[in-house]
Amino acid sequence: MKLERLGERELIAAIRKEFPGSGKNIVLGIGDDAAVVRPGRIPLILTKDLLVEDVDFIRSLHPARCIGRKSLNVNLSDIAAMGGNPKYALLGLAFPPDLSLTWVSEFMAGFGSAARQAGVDLIGGDVSKALTIMISVTVLGEGKNTVRRSGARPGHRIYVSGCLGDAKLGFLLTMKGLRLGRSKSADPILRAFLDPVPRIALGRELARRNIPSSMIDVSDGLSVDLMHICEESGTGAEIELARLPLSPGMRTFGGKKALDYALHGGEDFELLFTAAPGKQNLLESLKKRFKITMIGRMTGKKGIYSVDRFGRKKRLEIKGYEHFT
Amino acid sequence: MKLERLGERELIAAIRKEFPGSGKNIVLGIGDDAAVVRPGRIPLILTKDLLVEDVDFIRSLHPARCIGRKSLNVNLSDIAAMGGNPKYALLGLAFPPDLSLTWVSEFMAGFGSAARQAGVDLIGGDVSKALTIMISVTVLGEGKNTVRRSGARPGHRIYVSGCLGDAKLGFLLTMKGLRLGRSKSADPILRAFLDPVPRIALGRELARRNIPSSMIDVSDGLSVDLMHICEESGTGAEIELARLPLSPGMRTFGGKKALDYALHGGEDFELLFTAAPGKQNLLESLKKRFKITMIGRMTGKKGIYSVDRFGRKKRLEIKGYEHFT
Repeated sequence: MKLERLGERELIAAIRKEFPGSGKNIVLGIGDDAAVVRPGRIPLILTKDLLVEDVDFIRSLHPARCIGRKSLNVNLSDIAAMGGNPKYALLGLAFPPDLSLTWVSEFMAGFGSAARQAGVDLIGGDVSKALTIMISVTVLGEGKNTVRRSGARPGHRIYVSGCLGDAKLGFLLTMKGLRLGRSKSADPILRAFLDPVPRIALGRELARRNIPSSMIDVSDGLSVDLMHICEESGTGAEIELARLPLSPGMRTFGGKKALDYALHGGEDFELLFTAAPGKQNLLESLKKRFKITMIGRMTGKKGIYSVDRFGRKKRLEIKGYEHFT
Repeated sequence: MKLERLGERELIAAIRKEFPGSGKNIVLGIGDDAAVVRPGRIPLILTKDLLVEDVDFIRSLHPARCIGRKSLNVNLSDIAAMGGNPKYALLGLAFPPDLSLTWVSEFMAGFGSAARQAGVDLIGGDVSKALTIMISVTVLGEGKNTVRRSGARPGHRIYVSGCLGDAKLGFLLTMKGLRLGRSKSADPILRAFLDPVPRIALGRELARRNIPSSMIDVSDGLSVDLMHICEESGTGAEIELARLPLSPGMRTFGGKKALDYALHGGEDFELLFTAAPGKQNLLESLKKRFKITMIGRMTGKKGIYSVDRFGRKKRLEIKGYEHFT
């Protein structure tokens, strides 16, 4: 069934049924002019991210279910990078009228599964037509000790969660024709691109223990996102290349470009944060539950430098990347 | 200058400079992973609307400044329909890389002017590329007595603010080649389509005095939006055609279709609400400041009927409309 035959009203009614908005602080969910929630006393964190067809995903390569999950999860990653607790989501979805109903159902199922995983309620949004699919998600969260990009100081250590570069490699393997569920060794890499995981629990724990002096999620790539921290904090940084965390899949498929993907790949949605040296003990206790790697330190000298395993220092090229354009 | 030469960072830096987020409850505005605001004790109202090129506007016909204003104002209209007080906005903007910088500057200037008028702070968002322009705005407001669509009861009177149908007529005149600033008599009609005004003050006053039993803004057209109220309230309605408020411009340019535009035109962004007969005195006092017209009454019988000036009753066709598609 094509969506043009369904209509906006029926679609919203279906979504409303799926997402009744039963959270105890939801005064009014989907179906009125706007949603209403009862605020707590904790500061509110707000984030909005766009996913655009042929810019952020290609319909034929990216399962609709994964796009649904990713459209929410990239926003949850921003909340995680503030050390917050995501609560409510609004979904704006514009699509061509000849899009199949299956696509939208799969998309919504993915969105719903990511929402349930994170304890997030979908409380409102908008649907519209467009030439290509465009998704706009807004998430509201709460956070007592929100962590900014601006608190890093010279001497603070730089840490990153998980592994770096997998999403970029996963994108390249997807473009080469590899698909999910066909190879045990490639799947984690493909999934890093198609279905990334926001580090909500880690972000929250870090903030609760007051560990990070600054934090950001790796969306543009390590070099660009570290530059954001440096700019906002007024510092420089040194990255030890040998310490960059590479996954088994990256070692299998990454070849000579592994380091390049790790430095500039983007869309990893891992947490990049800095912490004063005194916080090391607190961090050790978290390492039992989360993969965290120290990768360098902040400096007083402007610019970001890489240090190779022979101790040679080199100015790091700051480059983001874009998948499809 | 084309936007592709500017880049996302520079654009966000320019917007950040323009919208420093100085409101006293803004902990963190544009420039970090997410925005942070200090919540009040009043329930939060959230709304999200999409504006898509060639669906909601045509670039060559719709001044960028007006699109900037309208993209915020359609959201403010939703907040008004809840009787709320708009506070914060998030802006998602996706556009083709070859879009002119002038367009974006004008768009942002319009967005800014509407924000200042309403006392709204832009605190965050996202920019991206797309084949055509897509705008996604989220607004947060506050409202103690939020007004839903579901409280109408048989016997309640139906009211509407301002005039009906002008936006549809303004759209048709725009398509015919009429432009703003060239004809004193056509300008208000064109403006109703290009630059509609959200009825924030009226919505707030109505809610504060606890007048409406239900309320919605006229975005899809009177017949469709009244049907929303009927469906949510479990009632029917009767509209007296002779009472529908038509503007002087509608009487000049509307011709034989004036009534059709008023009933089904859409995008008027006037407030449509119901009130118990006992609220009439409270309403009278508001009529000194706002144009409000009684246009019919809610009934216990399912369906919406029109009553002409001879008292003839007819089932009203429920039809929305779409501008360009």
